[in-house]
Amino acid sequence: MTQDHTQSCPIARVLNIFGDNWTWLIIREAFYGASRFKDFERNTGIAKNLLSSRLNLLVDRGIFEKVNIGERGTRFSYKLTPKGKALRTTLYAMLQWGNEHLYGEGEEAVVLRDKKTGKLVRKMSLISEEGQPLEAHEVQVEIGPGAEPEVIQKLERAHIAIEEKKRAAQS
Amino acid sequence: MTQDHTQSCPIARVLNIFGDNWTWLIIREAFYGASRFKDFERNTGIAKNLLSSRLNLLVDRGIFEKVNIGERGTRFSYKLTPKGKALRTTLYAMLQWGNEHLYGEGEEAVVLRDKKTGKLVRKMSLISEEGQPLEAHEVQVEIGPGAEPEVIQKLERAHIAIEEKKRAAQS
Repeated sequence: MTQDHTQSCPIARVLNIFGDNWTWLIIREAFYGASRFKDFERNTGIAKNLLSSRLNLLVDRGIFEKVNIGERGTRFSYKLTPKGKALRTTLYAMLQWGNEHLYGEGEEAVVLRDKKTGKLVRKMSLISEEGQPLEAHEVQVEIGPGAEPEVIQKLERAHIAIEEKKRAAQS
Repeated sequence: MTQDHTQSCPIARVLNIFGDNWTWLIIREAFYGASRFKDFERNTGIAKNLLSSRLNLLVDRGIFEKVNIGERGTRFSYKLTPKGKALRTTLYAMLQWGNEHLYGEGEEAVVLRDKKTGKLVRKMSLISEEGQPLEAHEVQVEIGPGAEPEVIQKLERAHIAIEEKKRAAQS
C-alpha cells in the first residue's frame, strides 16, 4: 500500500504502521520465537531488502527493539517491546477467526490451549467493565475525545446509515 | 503482497485473504455502515479498479454478500455475511491496540462503550473456558489436528527457541 491513510481513526493508524501483510507475518514469527534476521527470512520467505526495511520500520515505531548481541558489534537480535507484545491480541483474533472460518472442524493447524486446565481457550470477545462478554449490538463505537472532523463526519454518517437500515427492516 | 503465503497457519491464511491493508479498511467501512460501492470509494479513497477487485474477492471468500437492490438489476449493495461480521473481533483488537499505543491518553479518536452501563469496554484478552482472562504466559500455542509438516516444524523450532531463551535468562 503506497498511499498513507491519513485518517485519525485508530484502525487506519494501525494499518499505516503495518503497511502490508509481510509486517504481520514478521510479528507472528517474533511470537513464535524468531529474533534474528535469518530466522525471519527463512520462516516468512520475504526478500532480504523488504525484510530489512520492515524491521527498521518496526524498530522506528517502537514495536521491535534492536539489540546488539555480537562480540564485535555485527550481530543483532530483534525483540518485541511491550508495545509489540501487546499485538498478541490482534494476532490471536486473526488466528481464532481463521480457525473458525477457514478450516473444517478438527482440521485446525494451530490451537490455543489454557496451560493450567489443558482446555482450549474461548473465542475472544469484547468484555464489559464487569467482566462479562459483550455481543456486537451491546457495544457502541463512539467518537472519542481526540476525533478529528473527518472521523466525526464518518461516524455520524455511519449512525445515519445504521438507523436507515433499522427503519428499512421495520417497514 | 503478490506472493501467496502457502503455509497452513491460520494467520497466514487470514492474511492471504486480506492481501493488503485496503481490504481491512473496506471491512472497517462496512462495520461503519457502508454498503454501496460509492460509500467504500468515498470513505477509503481507494482507486475504483482496486476497490472493485477487492470487493469481488471478498464476495468470493464469503465475507461480503452482493445483493441486487436495483429495480433494473444495476444497483448493488455489499453486506457482511456472518463470516464477515465475525471479523469484528480482529478490528476491535486493532482499535484497542491503536488507542493504547498510538494515541495519548484522552486523545483517542474512537472509543468502545458498553451501551447498557455507559462504561468503556475492557481491553480484550484471551478467556479461559471458565471465563477468566488469560495472560500471555498462561496460553500455549499448540500444533492442531490439521497441521501440515511445515507448521509442525515451525512450532517445534519455536518451542526450542523459547526454551533456549529461558535457559539463557537463567544462566
